Amino acid sequence: MTKFKAIKGNIASPKGFTADATHAELKFQKLDLGLILSDVPAAVAGVFTTNKVAAAPIDLDKAVVAGGVAQAIIVNSAIANAVTGDEGITNAKKTQRLLAEKFDLNPSHVAVCSTGVIGKQLPMDKIALGISKLSAENGHTNGFAEAILTTDLVTKEVTYEVEIAGKTVTVAGVCKGSGMIHPNMATMLGFITTDAKIAQPLLQNMLSEIIETTFNQITVDGDTSTNDIVLVMANGQADNAEILVDTEDYQAFKTVLAIVCQDLAKKIAADGEGATKLIEVNVTGAPDELSARLIAKQIVGSSLVKTAIFGADPNWGRVISAIGQVAAFDVPDIELEIQGDLVLLHSTPVDFDQAELSEKLKEKIVVIDADLNNGTQSGTAWGCDLTYKYVEINALYHS
Amino acid sequence: MTKFKAIKGNIASPKGFTADATHAELKFQKLDLGLILSDVPAAVAGVFTTNKVAAAPIDLDKAVVAGGVAQAIIVNSAIANAVTGDEGITNAKKTQRLLAEKFDLNPSHVAVCSTGVIGKQLPMDKIALGISKLSAENGHTNGFAEAILTTDLVTKEVTYEVEIAGKTVTVAGVCKGSGMIHPNMATMLGFITTDAKIAQPLLQNMLSEIIETTFNQITVDGDTSTNDIVLVMANGQADNAEILVDTEDYQAFKTVLAIVCQDLAKKIAADGEGATKLIEVNVTGAPDELSARLIAKQIVGSSLVKTAIFGADPNWGRVISAIGQVAAFDVPDIELEIQGDLVLLHSTPVDFDQAELSEKLKEKIVVIDADLNNGTQSGTAWGCDLTYKYVEINALYHS
Repeated sequence: MTKFKAIKGNIASPKGFTADATHAELKFQKLDLGLILSDVPAAVAGVFTTNKVAAAPIDLDKAVVAGGVAQAIIVNSAIANAVTGDEGITNAKKTQRLLAEKFDLNPSHVAVCSTGVIGKQLPMDKIALGISKLSAENGHTNGFAEAILTTDLVTKEVTYEVEIAGKTVTVAGVCKGSGMIHPNMATMLGFITTDAKIAQPLLQNMLSEIIETTFNQITVDGDTSTNDIVLVMANGQADNAEILVDTEDYQAFKTVLAIVCQDLAKKIAADGEGATKLIEVNVTGAPDELSARLIAKQIVGSSLVKTAIFGADPNWGRVISAIGQVAAFDVPDIELEIQGDLVLLHSTPVDFDQAELSEKLKEKIVVIDADLNNGTQSGTAWGCDLTYKYVEINALYHS
Repeated sequence: MTKFKAIKGNIASPKGFTADATHAELKFQKLDLGLILSDVPAAVAGVFTTNKVAAAPIDLDKAVVAGGVAQAIIVNSAIANAVTGDEGITNAKKTQRLLAEKFDLNPSHVAVCSTGVIGKQLPMDKIALGISKLSAENGHTNGFAEAILTTDLVTKEVTYEVEIAGKTVTVAGVCKGSGMIHPNMATMLGFITTDAKIAQPLLQNMLSEIIETTFNQITVDGDTSTNDIVLVMANGQADNAEILVDTEDYQAFKTVLAIVCQDLAKKIAADGEGATKLIEVNVTGAPDELSARLIAKQIVGSSLVKTAIFGADPNWGRVISAIGQVAAFDVPDIELEIQGDLVLLHSTPVDFDQAELSEKLKEKIVVIDADLNNGTQSGTAWGCDLTYKYVEINALYHS
């Protein structure tokens, strides 16, 4: 049995990590430049956007992950450094170099991330000034979670401890993301630090597997960003015996890493632009896991389902229409529950108390369970309701 | 050169067709049951929803089209007769039989369509009473377009005349659709009548081809309905020499049929739930037509693009992010125009007058032109903006 627990902490809680944030004047009076720093070079794993219009830092970060080692991550908000041509690439590289010089690191061990408006160049004088103000001793660790936000309303952090071969290993995660959320790999910016000792290829495999059922299963608006990235740094400072493949320790660590990713993913869905509710859709009884996940994501991404839930309307017709839209097989035997109330059995409506269920749909978390009775595989997806506020935010958040 | 022109008319304008509508008490005080009737059996072509949760009438109509001949189409609104199990199928068949008896037709020549709320059974006593009130002599032809509406704000009709081998052939179309619009074949209900003489297999091929670039290229909310259908009836009463494949007449008739489908499709997009603007996206310079259409549809379906246009924001970043999301190839040389203003050249931002373009985005029709400079193929898609009203309609239109 995995021994793990959630603790109060932040991205710098794992041994040998520090974090900091500063105001580089990219945003108005808000933190907008953040740093995660490891005392020693760490194994790094990453997953990246599949959008063909990828931001300038994405290629740079792919090279860092290909090298297998990272010691720092520098992140700016407000400007995405996407669709910025050669100048954008130059600026990303310059940011990497400035940060490496400041902390005496190998530049190829520095990941660079940006999020914000597409098509604007980074003001490099401001970035340089901001970097000069960052420090490994500020203890301004919680600022990092704040510095990476754009239209997010809340910071998103989670920290767990897990016992690995008698040692306490800490895993901390932080992310941002509220709009342009429909990851086809990973969502927006997600950073995870751990003091676990684990080889890089193993960490990468683990992350790639976990991403499929966590970050890739959330959607806010169906749009995949140009900047999506999730990076994990493991610096080995917990001094555990190295985690090897297919051992109990491997399972324990993977379980916690998956929980961290899932917690972060759910926080993004719950803080979706304009959202008033988190929606969780569980699909069971599917012939294969991929279908289950696809169907779950289709339901949670349907504008009609999202608006119905905003209106506290148990409109199951929209749910099963969404199922039928992407199912590659017939679905004559669907059993559907909304907030635990059975509304459909054998794909046929059953009587339920409409008013009572509508009342239950006013809760902050809405759960939809769909059993397809056509196999043993399952999948879950998370999203949020579609509200007036979503339209307001995106009609008024001008380019 | 094709000689054709738009005329004032309705679905009963082609020779040998009549139409009628009545109030069957499915809706409150509105027409809700419509009939299209041909004096003689007509060649019938159809395309149907790909949603695995298809409405009860869909299978019945597939059988009619497989038979190749139809003489009448009976349509009710308010209730979709979808997810209604065996009882729903029985009710669709009963509707078919009642209509056939009333007008002395072969039941297998009667198509039955429904649109409205999912999961409710048709009240067959009301349907029967409604059918008894329908008549081929009422001359209540415009009522049909009204009787098939649900959340639509306006009726959608178009009529053209075209000269085929010295004879005047009339083609008329009518459709409905406002929400759950993201056809993966055809959208909602679309009916086209013509007095042209053309063999059924040829008509079916023509329709199947045309659908791909017309009805299948519109999206309102990304949701494919359970009831989508487009039916074409050709009764030959124009007395033209039969239209044969690959002739000039064939091209002329196909051109007009395509225009009718495109006009109807655009009317649906413009009347999308809550819409204030019609959006047209033209993608050129693609390596293949399918990619061009897919990219055009992705742009026009993006919630972020749709809200930006509602807010009159020339947010080209969201447009090219949508391109990158579905392009299967690199896109380093995009040339993007919004309302005719160049905003991106060689995938790099160019200076433009933001205020002036924002003013242009307040027009009722917004056109986005994206040249990928990566081939010779093109595709167009139509949609609408995403507004507060869309959320209101779908949060309050209770199941």
